[in-house]
This record gives sequence, C-alpha cells and structure tokens, in this order.
Amino acid sequence: MKIFLAGNFISTQNKLLVSNPYNGETVAETFLAGPAELEPAIVAAQQALQPMRSLPSYKRYEALMHIRTQLLARRQEFAETIMLESGKPLRYALGEVDRSIQTFTVAAEESKRLPGEYLSLDWTAAGENREGIVRYFPAGIVAGIAPFNFPLNLAVHKIAPAIAAGCPIILKPASSTPLSTLLLAEIISETGLPAGAVSVLPMDRHTGNLLVTDPRIAVLSFTGSPEVGWKMKADAGKKKVVLELGGNAGVIVSDTADIDLALSKCITGAFSYSGQVCIHTQRIFVHHQIFEEFSNRFAAMAAVLKTGDPALTETEFSSMIDEANAIRVENWVNEAISGGARLIGGGKRNGTFYAPTILTDTKDEMQVCSNEVFGPVVTLEPFHEFKEAAERINNTRFGLQAGVFTNSIYEMDYAFAALEVGGVIINDVPTFRVDHMPYGGVKDSGLGREGVKYAIMDMMEARILVKGKS
Amino acid sequence: MKIFLAGNFISTQNKLLVSNPYNGETVAETFLAGPAELEPAIVAAQQALQPMRSLPSYKRYEALMHIRTQLLARRQEFAETIMLESGKPLRYALGEVDRSIQTFTVAAEESKRLPGEYLSLDWTAAGENREGIVRYFPAGIVAGIAPFNFPLNLAVHKIAPAIAAGCPIILKPASSTPLSTLLLAEIISETGLPAGAVSVLPMDRHTGNLLVTDPRIAVLSFTGSPEVGWKMKADAGKKKVVLELGGNAGVIVSDTADIDLALSKCITGAFSYSGQVCIHTQRIFVHHQIFEEFSNRFAAMAAVLKTGDPALTETEFSSMIDEANAIRVENWVNEAISGGARLIGGGKRNGTFYAPTILTDTKDEMQVCSNEVFGPVVTLEPFHEFKEAAERINNTRFGLQAGVFTNSIYEMDYAFAALEVGGVIINDVPTFRVDHMPYGGVKDSGLGREGVKYAIMDMMEARILVKGKS
Amino acid sequence: MKIFLAGNFISTQNKLLVSNPYNGETVAETFLAGPAELEPAIVAAQQALQPMRSLPSYKRYEALMHIRTQLLARRQEFAETIMLESGKPLRYALGEVDRSIQTFTVAAEESKRLPGEYLSLDWTAAGENREGIVRYFPAGIVAGIAPFNFPLNLAVHKIAPAIAAGCPIILKPASSTPLSTLLLAEIISETGLPAGAVSVLPMDRHTGNLLVTDPRIAVLSFTGSPEVGWKMKADAGKKKVVLELGGNAGVIVSDTADIDLALSKCITGAFSYSGQVCIHTQRIFVHHQIFEEFSNRFAAMAAVLKTGDPALTETEFSSMIDEANAIRVENWVNEAISGGARLIGGGKRNGTFYAPTILTDTKDEMQVCSNEVFGPVVTLEPFHEFKEAAERINNTRFGLQAGVFTNSIYEMDYAFAALEVGGVIINDVPTFRVDHMPYGGVKDSGLGREGVKYAIMDMMEARILVKGKS
Amino acid sequence: MKIFLAGNFISTQNKLLVSNPYNGETVAETFLAGPAELEPAIVAAQQALQPMRSLPSYKRYEALMHIRTQLLARRQEFAETIMLESGKPLRYALGEVDRSIQTFTVAAEESKRLPGEYLSLDWTAAGENREGIVRYFPAGIVAGIAPFNFPLNLAVHKIAPAIAAGCPIILKPASSTPLSTLLLAEIISETGLPAGAVSVLPMDRHTGNLLVTDPRIAVLSFTGSPEVGWKMKADAGKKKVVLELGGNAGVIVSDTADIDLALSKCITGAFSYSGQVCIHTQRIFVHHQIFEEFSNRFAAMAAVLKTGDPALTETEFSSMIDEANAIRVENWVNEAISGGARLIGGGKRNGTFYAPTILTDTKDEMQVCSNEVFGPVVTLEPFHEFKEAAERINNTRFGLQAGVFTNSIYEMDYAFAALEVGGVIINDVPTFRVDHMPYGGVKDSGLGREGVKYAIMDMMEARILVKGKS
Repeated sequence: MKIFLAGNFISTQNKLLVSNPYNGETVAETFLAGPAELEPAIVAAQQALQPMRSLPSYKRYEALMHIRTQLLARRQEFAETIMLESGKPLRYALGEVDRSIQTFTVAAEESKRLPGEYLSLDWTAAGENREGIVRYFPAGIVAGIAPFNFPLNLAVHKIAPAIAAGCPIILKPASSTPLSTLLLAEIISETGLPAGAVSVLPMDRHTGNLLVTDPRIAVLSFTGSPEVGWKMKADAGKKKVVLELGGNAGVIVSDTADIDLALSKCITGAFSYSGQVCIHTQRIFVHHQIFEEFSNRFAAMAAVLKTGDPALTETEFSSMIDEANAIRVENWVNEAISGGARLIGGGKRNGTFYAPTILTDTKDEMQVCSNEVFGPVVTLEPFHEFKEAAERINNTRFGLQAGVFTNSIYEMDYAFAALEVGGVIINDVPTFRVDHMPYGGVKDSGLGREGVKYAIMDMMEARILVKGKS
Repeated sequence: MKIFLAGNFISTQNKLLVSNPYNGETVAETFLAGPAELEPAIVAAQQALQPMRSLPSYKRYEALMHIRTQLLARRQEFAETIMLESGKPLRYALGEVDRSIQTFTVAAEESKRLPGEYLSLDWTAAGENREGIVRYFPAGIVAGIAPFNFPLNLAVHKIAPAIAAGCPIILKPASSTPLSTLLLAEIISETGLPAGAVSVLPMDRHTGNLLVTDPRIAVLSFTGSPEVGWKMKADAGKKKVVLELGGNAGVIVSDTADIDLALSKCITGAFSYSGQVCIHTQRIFVHHQIFEEFSNRFAAMAAVLKTGDPALTETEFSSMIDEANAIRVENWVNEAISGGARLIGGGKRNGTFYAPTILTDTKDEMQVCSNEVFGPVVTLEPFHEFKEAAERINNTRFGLQAGVFTNSIYEMDYAFAALEVGGVIINDVPTFRVDHMPYGGVKDSGLGREGVKYAIMDMMEARILVKGKS
Repeated sequence: MKIFLAGNFISTQNKLLVSNPYNGETVAETFLAGPAELEPAIVAAQQALQPMRSLPSYKRYEALMHIRTQLLARRQEFAETIMLESGKPLRYALGEVDRSIQTFTVAAEESKRLPGEYLSLDWTAAGENREGIVRYFPAGIVAGIAPFNFPLNLAVHKIAPAIAAGCPIILKPASSTPLSTLLLAEIISETGLPAGAVSVLPMDRHTGNLLVTDPRIAVLSFTGSPEVGWKMKADAGKKKVVLELGGNAGVIVSDTADIDLALSKCITGAFSYSGQVCIHTQRIFVHHQIFEEFSNRFAAMAAVLKTGDPALTETEFSSMIDEANAIRVENWVNEAISGGARLIGGGKRNGTFYAPTILTDTKDEMQVCSNEVFGPVVTLEPFHEFKEAAERINNTRFGLQAGVFTNSIYEMDYAFAALEVGGVIINDVPTFRVDHMPYGGVKDSGLGREGVKYAIMDMMEARILVKGKS
Repeated sequence: MKIFLAGNFISTQNKLLVSNPYNGETVAETFLAGPAELEPAIVAAQQALQPMRSLPSYKRYEALMHIRTQLLARRQEFAETIMLESGKPLRYALGEVDRSIQTFTVAAEESKRLPGEYLSLDWTAAGENREGIVRYFPAGIVAGIAPFNFPLNLAVHKIAPAIAAGCPIILKPASSTPLSTLLLAEIISETGLPAGAVSVLPMDRHTGNLLVTDPRIAVLSFTGSPEVGWKMKADAGKKKVVLELGGNAGVIVSDTADIDLALSKCITGAFSYSGQVCIHTQRIFVHHQIFEEFSNRFAAMAAVLKTGDPALTETEFSSMIDEANAIRVENWVNEAISGGARLIGGGKRNGTFYAPTILTDTKDEMQVCSNEVFGPVVTLEPFHEFKEAAERINNTRFGLQAGVFTNSIYEMDYAFAALEVGGVIINDVPTFRVDHMPYGGVKDSGLGREGVKYAIMDMMEARILVKGKS
C-alpha cells in the first residue's frame, strides 16, 4: 500500500510491514517516509496555504461531505482494515468507522460556521465611532500525529478540522496501524482539494521529530502518550500545540445509582479494545453498601466476555496491540499483587492476549492506579463518603474524564465542581465520547480540546478589523 | 409631586391622590396625564429617536450608571416611598430598591454588549465572496405600562433596557403607585439624556389606551393582568408586543427534598407582599409521605408571621393594595370552602388586611387554583407520583414559573422537560427571580421575556449588511 | 393531485384547477380543504406535539436530509412543476429548487444546534450558589401561509424550520400554485415523522381565516401582502406572529460604483419572474453624473431580454401570475405617465404578459413608487448627494431590503446606519437573498426574521432551569 | 516602597533604586524579591486556589470595582508615578491610568459573564437522551510578567483578568518601573480578596526564570521582547503560555485617504512615548501621488513637537527609558544612513533623549525596518499599487497590527484578508487599542490574545458535564 504525499501515492525505500496483532500474520506492506519525503510534503503544504485559505465554505463543505459519503459506502472495508491492523474486534471497528463518518459530517457543517464576532468599540471616548469585526484565519500548516488505538478516527479528528479550517495538514499515523488512514487518503485524493492540502505519511522516529521542530509548521496536534507529548511541547518552537494524552480515568458508583446500568457500562468501559483507550475505565470506586454485589456481578460479567478472533462479529474481547505491551501489563498486575492487591478476575497472559483483569485492595501509588495502564485491567475499591471518592479520583497527575453513577443532584453538582478533569460523565463511564463535544484533559492529560468545533479553533488565528461606523 | 413629560416636571388639571393602603392616609398629590400631555410626549420621543440612536455606548453607560449610583445614595428614601404608596413592608421595599440598582447596573453593562453577528454567506455558489454583518438598531418609541406591585423595579425593567437599547420610552406607572417612579424621574432628569428620551406619565384609562393604539409607537411592553394584556395585543396594530402577565405558580415538594428549606422558602413565596406578586407561590404539591409534617409546620409558621404597619422593619406581612381586592380574595376563599376545601389557617379579613391563608382539599377548577389569586392564599395538596404532581402544575391556562424541591436528578430533568412554564426553579419557590435572567411566561402568562438582555433585544431590530469579501 | 392531511393523501368535494399562467392550460386538478379537513389536521398536529418534541436531534436531521436528498434527485420534476403552476421561467424555477435543497440542508444542520445558554446567577447575593440553564422548546403548532411567487421555497422556509424546531405544521399554499408543495408532501410522507407533523392543505379564504384564529395554534407564519398580513396579526389572538410582507425595494448607484456590475444586477433584480418578488428591485437611484449612461444601457438591456414560453431554458422573461395583476400594473404605469412620468421602455400588456417597463421622472407618491408594484416595472431617478438618495429610499412606508453599488467605505457605512430596512446589500440588488441569512422587513414590510436559524427561534420558547451549584 | 507578597508589604535585603529617565534623579527605593520571597508567594497562591475559585461573581465584581473606583480617585497620583518611573509625558500617563480604570471596569463586568455552553449531544444514536454543559474553571496560578513601557496598564491586563477568572497571580513588574504597580497593590490589599490572590514582586533575572519554570504555576502571561518570550515558551513545561511581543507595525496611506487625518494620527503613532510602544507606528507606506505632500508635512509636524520635561502637561515628547536604548536606536539609524537611507528629520541623540526621526529610501532588511526599533524612528516610503504596499507590510517576521488610511471598500477588504497581523485598523494607526478588543500578534509577534475577555479565557479550562435529559 503506497503512502500519500501531497496528492500522489508513492513508495519509498523503507518498507513497513503491518501485521495482525491477533495472529501475527502480515496484513500489508507499506512504506516509511524519511526527510526526503517530508520536505516536499512541507513545500506542497506551503503552496496549498493560499488556495486552501481562499476556498469558499461550500467547497470545503463539498469536499468533507464527499469523504463522509464514501466512508459510508465503504464502511465494511474500512472496519476490516482497522480490525486487521489493530486487532480491534470488528464490532468496535465498525463503531469507529461510524464515528469517523460523523466527524467528517460535523466538520463539513462547522466549516460554514467558523465564528466571527462583531464588537462595538465605543466603550470609552477613545473608541467613539468605531466598531470591530473579528474573523478567524487558518493558522498555517498543521502537523498531526495519531496513535494506534483508533487508527482511523483519531487521525480524522485532525484531518477533518484542518480541512474545515483551511489548513494544509501532514498526518503521521502510528507505524503499527497506518492502513486505514492510507485508505482514507484514497478518498481524499478524489475531492479536488489542492494537492498539498493533505499528506498521510508513516514516518520513522527521526522524521517524526522533524515534523515537531520544523519552523514552517504552525500547529502541532498530537494524540499519544504523556511523556512523548510533553517533550514535544518543549521542542515545538513557536507552534501552537494541542496535546491529547492519556489518563487513568475513574468512576464513582453512588448508592443512589442504577446498579444494572453501572455494571453494564463499566464492563464496556473497562474491557473494550482491551482497555487500549485514552479514556479507558481504569479505576472504579463503589459505595461500600453495594460494593460486594457490584464486585461479584462485575467479575461474573467479565468472565463471560466473548474472547477470540477480532474478525468474528460475536467477539467482544481480543488481543492487545503487541506482546511487549501485554508483558508490561502483566508485570504491573503482578507488582500490584505483590504489594497487597487482590485479584478478582483475569490476570493471565497468552502471547499478545491478556485476560480481562480485576483488582481490589490496591493502593493509589501502585502502577495499575497511578499510571495509564492502557490494557484490560480495572481496579474496584469501596468508599464511604462521596467526597472521599472524588478525592481519590483527583489524587493523580492525570485528569481526562470521570464517570459518576448517581441520582443525586448534590453528588452531580459536587462532582462537576470538584473533579479535576476535562469531562464529568453522569450515569456513564469516562469512556463516553461523542465527536462534537469538547474533549481533552487537564493536568498531565493534555492541553487544548478536540471535538470538531474546538479543534478547528485551535487551528485558526483571530484577526480584528477596526473601522469607523456612522 | 409633578409628573415627568420629556424632561420637564409639570402639573395637569387632573389631580391624583395617592394613599397608604395600610392606614388610608394620603401620601402625596400628583397628576394624571391626558391626551394633551401624551401628544407632546410622543412628539418629543420622536425627536429623541435620532439622538438616542446615535449615543455612543459609553454615554448610555454613563447615564445608566449615574441613575444606579443615585438610587444607591437615596436607597432609604425610595424604599419608604414604595412602602407608603403600596403598603409593602419596608424590608421588602428595600429589597426592591436593591433590585432596581442591579437592573440599572446590568443595563449599563449590556448597553455596551448589544449583539452583532458575523456570517459567512458563501454556503452556496450564490453567496460566494460575500459576508454578512448583523447589527441591531433601536426599534423606535417604547410604551411601557407598569403595575402597582413592584412600582419601582417593574418600571425599571422597561426604562433601563429602553435607555440601553437607545429607544425613547413613555412609561405609565400604576395610578395607585406612581410616586417611586416619579422620584426616579428626578434622577433621570440629571443624566443629560435627550429631553424626549424618558417620560413618566400616570394616565387615565382612555389615555392609556391611546398609548396602546398610537401608530407612532413601535414597541408595547406591558406588565399586568392577563385579560388586559391580551386585549392590548389585539389592539396594538403593527407594534412589537411584550406581555408579562400573571399566573398561579405551583411548587412540588418531593420526598427527597430538604423539608426545612422547602418550608422556609414556601412561607416567603406564599405570603411576601400579601401574595401580590406575579410569581406568588399559589399551589404547593407535597409528597404524601411528608404531607402531614409539611402542612402542620407550614400552618404553624404562617401563624407567627409578624403582621402590622409596613413602616416597621420587623413587619413581615401587612395589608393588600385596596379593600376591593381583599374582598375579592375573601370571596374566592369562601367559595372554595363551600366547594369542599378545608381551611388550615387564616381566612379572615379586616378592611384591606387579609390574613395569611392556607387551603387544602381544593379542586383544580376552584378560583383559588385556576385563577391568579394575587393575594395571601396558598393551597396545599398531597401527591403520590412525581409525574402526577407535574400534571397538576400544568393543568391550568397559566405557565409562568414553577418550583421543585428535590435531590433527584431524574425529577429535576423530568420537571425541566415537562413543566409548561418559563422557568423551573430547583430547590426554591417559583417566586425566585434575579434581574438578569430571562423571565416570562408561556400559555396565558405572557409573550416574550424580560431580564435586561432579553428585554433589550425585544426593543431592537436586526439589520444585515451584505458585502463582498476578498 | 391529492392534498396532504396529517400523513394521508386525500381528496375533498371542493375541486381546485391549477392552470399555467402562460397559456391558460390546466396543469392539474387538486382540492381545497374546508373546516372538515382543517379540524382533523389540527387534532393530528396536537397528537404529534409530544412525539415531535421528543425526537432526538439525529432523527430530525435524518428526516430533513432525506427530504433534501430526494429533492436533489427529483430536481427537474420539481422545477417543471413550479414552472407550470406559476409561469416562472424554467431557469429560475431550477434555481428555486436549488434554494429549497439548501434550505432543508441548513435546517437539518441547525436542528442539532438549537441554542442553549448557561448563565451564572450569582451576580447578587440573592443568586449566590445558583446557576441557570436556558433551553428552547417547541412553541406548539405552527400555521404557515405561503404565497404564489416562490411556491416551493417560501413554503419550505416554514416547513423546514418547523421540523427542525419540533413543531407540527399546517401549511396553506397559495391556491394558484399548490402543486410543488404537494409534491414535496410525497417526500415528507416517506420520512417517518409522526403523521400529524406536517399537513399541506390548499384552503378557501374562510378556512384560511380559521387557521389564523384557532387558539390551538401557537405560531402564525405568513408570507404575503402587507394588508392581509397586518390584519392577521390583529386577529391572531395569543399566537406568536411572523410576517414576511412586501415592499418597494430601492437601489442606489453611486458614482464610485462598477457600472457594468450595477447594470447587470439591476436588470435581473428588476425583471426576473416579472418582478413578482418581495424584494423586487423597484426603484433605482443613480448618481447624476452617470445617470444618462446608466439609463440608456439599462433600457437597451431590458429591450433584449428573451421573452416567451417559461418552459424553454433560454426564456428570461414570461407572463405574470394572472391577467388581473397584469391589468393592475398597466393601470399603475398609465397613472404614473398621466402624472408626468416618462416611459423609457416597455409599458405594453398582452393578456397575462406585461413587458419589462422602465419609468423616470416619477414622484414618490405615485403608486409605482409608493406601493408594492409586484410586476416588471422599475423607476430610474438621478440624485446628487448620497444622503438625498438614502432619504428617498426611506421615504416610504416599507422597509425590506436595499441595494447600494459603491466603492466608498463612507457610503457603505452611511447606508448601513441610515437605511430603514432589514438588509443593506452592498454591490448587489436588494433582491439578493441566501437562505441562511436573517431576512425580513421593518416598518410595514414585516415582523420577525426568516432565514433558517431565525425562523426556528420564532417557533420556540425559552425555558430557564434555575438550580444550585457547588 | 515595599513590595507586595500575598497580602503583606515587605522589604528584602536586595534594594532597588528607581530613577527618572528624564533627569536621572532617584524617584524611590524599593526591593527585589529572590527565591526566598517567591516560594511563599507560590505557596500562598496555592492556598488561595480554592477560595478564589469559590468566590461568587458578585464578590469578584465588587473587588474589581473597588480597585476601579480607587484608581479613579487617585488618578493624578498614579499618573505622576508612571511619569516619574518611566519618563512618559504626563498627558500620556494620564491616558494610561484611564485605560487601567477601563480595564478593571471591563474585567468586573466580564467576571459575571464567564462563558458557559449548552450542547445537545444526541447528534447520533450514541448520544441519545444526553446533553452537555460546558463551564470554564480557573486554570490555576498565573505568572504575569510586565514590561516598562506601560508599567501600570500592561500589568493590569494580567491582574484584572486573573481576578475575574478566579486565578491567583504573581506579577513581576519591570525592574525599572515597578512603582505604579506597587501603588496598585495598596488598593488591591483593601479588597478582601484572599491573601494569596495577588503578589506584586519585582525580581532579579534568576528569580524571574524560576517563575517561568516552576511546575506549580499553570499559566504564563508575558509581555515583552520576542527573544525573551519565545525562549520562555520552550522553558515553560506544561504551562499554558500567552506571549504579547513586539513588532514593526506598518501603515498604508492610500490615495483615497483623508490626508489630514492620516498625518495627525501618524505623528502620534510614530512618536508618542518616544516610540516605546509594542504597536509603535514604525513603517509608513504612502501612495506615490501624495508622497511628497505627506512627507513634507509630516516632517514639519515632527519638527514642532513639544519636547522637554515629562512632568509638564504641554510636553508631547521626552526621553527614552535609558541611555543604552537611546544609543542602540542611534546606531540603527546610522547604520541605515550608511546603507543608503535618507534622513528627513531628527537623527540626534542627547543622553537618554533621541529626537523624533524620519527616514526614507530604506531597505526592508535594514534594522530600522526589519527589527522592532522601540524608539522614535519611522520610515516613509512611496508605493504604486495597494497590493505592493500590503506585501511590504507582510515582508517581515512580525505581525502585530497594521493601519490603513483609505476610503475604498476594495482596499479595506483586501487589507483585512491579506495583512498577516492580529489587527487591521482602518483610518487609524496600528497603535490604536481599546482595552476590551482582542489584541495580540501572529508570526513572531506573539501567541494568544489579550483584551479582557480573551485574556480571561486563556486563564481558564473547559470542563464538560455530560448528563441525561428527559
């Protein structure tokens, strides 16, 4: 599969084999871009700056709607590609394609609604007979760096806003999962956007670093691990930087909660795509009066998840992205057990497969609590006072989203005011996300917000026109 | 006390005596305007149209802040005037002055923030290379008609937005309570606004009708009774019409409520200023499991309200506006009792004084339930299901505000979605209002919204500038 | 062709023949609804209130996008229907269908963006620890009354916002041009919206009046003549009323203008669809230095317009809607000539056909100036000072839109501030409209604004939730 | 004069002498904070986080309005302090105090209007029955670093938004001009804000660097030189960073311009406070047909500026901040002359005084063109095509504001679309700023926007509440 350099599909001398994490079989062969490919991509993006900026709304809309319509028509093909490159069960891969369709739809609509502002300026005599009009202009070339876990939709969350904003974009997919984004490039190439508007280039690490440091790029939008992200911020020079990093998202289950709902949602939040989700439900705090019922039923539900080949539609749970990560998770769980944690379910590894795992009696400083586990591991802990549960949610360097199952107005309001996160989800897991809502983290979990409208704004710059008025 | 005609304080041949409802003593002598005064007021307002429209923001701001500052300086004087003309206990009269200070403050701030809009127009090829700028211009002369029950602040809710919007206004206060608004006119006359910007004219009924029908007036803003209001709408010709009418506001006290809070708030909502409040708490529905406790404690609290001379700061409850209204309320209560209702407290009249009165076992079709009682009468009824209570709240031709005491998210959300009113107040009575929130009724309770920003918008007209863009 | 009563296509005993204004041939037979049909339409609409209100955004979106997609697929069929029933040249009829497609597209998008508002309420101690959330709820059943001149798109400007807002609608098309809207009803019936959501019922005058007065209807949205509209406002009871009426729109051509552009736009604005357009370019004021050139070239361009059968794609100009109107226009022109006006072109009638007509030396009080001519007549007058031209634009009881051809910032700003209209169009005729911009008149030309987002708002009511916050 | 550490006025062992640039006399003695003072300031700020976040709107409003009112009362005293520490002529110092009064007023008003957002989330089935509420919470401790040239108002542009947002702030004034900000601290200490809410600490460079790197600080807001600013961004760790840097702002004078207006504005823009202004008018491009007239009259006007002691109210022009800067400017001018530039006026230095200087025949790469001159030097160059002038404005690494004198709509629109700056000022110099407008640069001139509302937003973080709706 060729890579997409400013309108052309090309090959390079640096081959990249993509394999299915479930069975290790090679799925496809593609290529890594090096500096020799990055340079013309940047030059083409520079040449596309003015044409992109000048596109009327309806042409941006048409391009984005074309992509949406083609994604819908090729939905199954995209889902299978995601499944093969990432090991994500097909049911979730289909859901991811649906979300990408929605992301492009919303971007198409928002491309017509870029905000402008009218300001009276005569608040003092100095501004008498003057008015201001604020418009937003594309900030320049965007570098987008996407992770493996939603190989299509998290790339789309950079590409679609960039097109809507009128910014050329160079997108680096994860080296393990570049195929679905390259497939998307086929559709993009049909749109008639300027050649340099979009490049999709898998890269080696050195070339990826050039993307971060090149001064011709105006915006860096990164989704990935906290360590890498914050390092990039320091290296990014004068760029605007948006970081969507990870976390160890927590849930509170209050004694006023609908326990059936909480169980069903938490199973999905904890184990879908083996927990390899930024807003994976990692820590569950349950009111002590319902803790025993909750943990028993939760363990029973986890034990009967349908595991196996991600290509089968009935499969709910499959392997992790690679064995190195499965071993890392295994070590963290074992470390927790050594430190006094108790295993309620799972805890076994078989190659890239790590079983749905539940721990209790953990301590906040264990890796399974304090770090982003990015695997199928969840901790269950009882609490007495709601305030105490909220404090434990906050007692970490991360702050992405949090879930609260409750029917108490007081608890809802308290959670919204007190939880140090980007999103508080009432009666659902922190794993909840729809693609037009503002999404992102505080503390070490990130900087800025995605969600189409918000991502567009981060790719634009305000300019005010001050003029007279009669 | 002279009346205020376009910058001049004048007297007319038609004297108006204002008396204290508590003791019948004459408070002051003032005048009624007739057609001979209305005509020059309208002409002066027409002459003020262009100067008012052209005032820069900072001059509107300065005028409104001057009024605010002077009201604050003369707070006690204004409160005593309100107390004397309306019989409102001093503690509540002081609160009304404070609210008027706030209404002018917010209007001053909003006068700088009149909304404008920037629109891209290139959503189709027909609009390519075009953009739109929407500004709002004053609609023209405003006629404001204010009621007796908040003689200052409900007039201020018309005057302050008119100044902020740049509209000349002719304000007709209630004939029983014109004094505080005329006192306000003194302050307005100090501001340097154009002479025709504000007139404050008590009027006989015939002249008031001319205000409704005159085609030179662009906006009619009326606060008063439903019957009068809807008739005016039919007579108003091409005017924009805003109606703030009355209701029979209801409260639901859920079994999850804080009962102490509910009791304390309901006592105030039911009996402050003898229930002569548009959003007076008239109907209270209490969950059957707490009904007995609630009704016993409520009756006990009502029985110990401090009654007496409104001039005394300790007085919590005093007379009604006039004996005719007290007799009307007496009749409605007696009619309810004849129909099977049971008296839990009050039910006695002495001249203009009608005691705090509580009824139960009422039926929805009784006048004390179905009509606006505008007096110190409240009904208490038990309910079983929350949905049933909501249906009874809705089972009326009115829809102003409703209160819900609850700690259940479900009940809060249900109430917001289901109650056919302009405002749903959680854990407070429907009587709650702050002056910048959108306020107004649905169904027979009104049309449009006050609350400074919203009132300003009702006095303005959108105009779009369509122009090219490069 | 059957009419559309709450999901069913029915016939009535009152037949309605629709004929082609160009040749008088019968195009189709359809039916008039009477009270016996209106009543079940209202009852069905009442039953649809709750289901419509409860539809999630994505279902409203899907319904509206289905209609859009089908309109696009049947574009030619719709255009021919419009052409046949209205005599509108096919080229303009195709443009009208395209606009309806856009109107539904925008309504689909806006149905997801119904505004809500978050308000802090703690601006005074009275609101401490409180916040407000404002949502907008459908106001109730909408009655839409549409005119003959854009038989599809002006009906769509009521139907599409009603669906987006969640309001059932009963739409009365003009009796002369009901066919394209009934064709639209076929598409609507495929959407799965509740049966009572939309009715399309041609009506006799008596039944139309019932639509105006029936108290079960909450919103009246009328597009048509000023006399009828303002009468309806007085009869409409407690309804919210939106009036899109007519005017005598003016244009100013400054000496800084691009004269080629001005000529080309003015020809279209003056004569497209024989001037039977609310924002028909009726009065053109040209700077005296370029007046002679402008009027000579304008007359020459008018003289070579391709006239004839509207079914032919090359036809630019065809007959009026009926002979009565053609005679009325003839009389007005003759009256003007008798009063001293001079004919520069046209002035002849042949049945329903009235030639493109240009007058000069008119006086403001002549009918061709002061009334809505709604026919292919335009006046050309020279001016000296820009201010003088603006005054003549304003010297009328109407105020819909105005066009200004200029390259002077000063003139643009002056026009925006001074022209008493709903829209000032720079470097285009007042006839300019795109479907998402706020559109509507001031003075006698109307009340409220259409343009999808604005029309939706007029069909909704604000409700505030006041709650605590921690 | 003591420095202000978290509510206390303290002295340190590190004295700082402040002298008058005009005559070198010592104005006052104050102190530099070191790490030993910074540490308790940060700890106190941490302790103030929760109390500040919890302050209701009206208390933030009251605090900010108290400061405003006291500044107004002590206007002369503050202006004289500014004049003494900075050498700014008194007339401009008074203007600066007035702007600070306005900045606090706007911040008071905006503290009540922190934006919130209501979002329907049911755009897909995944979000059915859900809604979102977005509120903004204070991001944490703010570090503010202010420059010497507007010693009061540019510090106020950090302090006032921080109080409005609910963020504690540690403000480092310029070491040469700390007095007016310390005087402001006296007023702040009267407000009853939490002790750690505001610290004003002059610092040595090492301590200032700690402020940039300390991880307990969430937001860095810097106004100063580009080199220092961009270095700080790289060192700031996880902080949000706002940079208000400098530029070499340009003006275009079109042949359609009002030349008297352009001359008068350009003289002020070029020479007020000796050009030591971020948006100093540094480069003037004049249409070749009016170039000779413009340059002759401009030189004549510059020659008669009243120079002298800044303490005199008639003084229009006085010394620079220190001799080092005066020498730097002298060198740049001499370098330009050596390179072929021609001196039209000025060009002489006397100690800290550098005369109003005008150059022509410059080249874009000369320091007086390409760098921020931050002194009383302006270049005048003729142009032929408007497009060419715009290109020269853009041909630099900076992009703060630009001025355009024109009466052509085409030129206005072209300038707004094409000029790569944060603000395009029509018919005024780029030096125009009112305090509520969005203000800031693109390219090397900065990151983010000040202007009260915009600065507040940069100090806050979005948090969404996702909840059910019925």
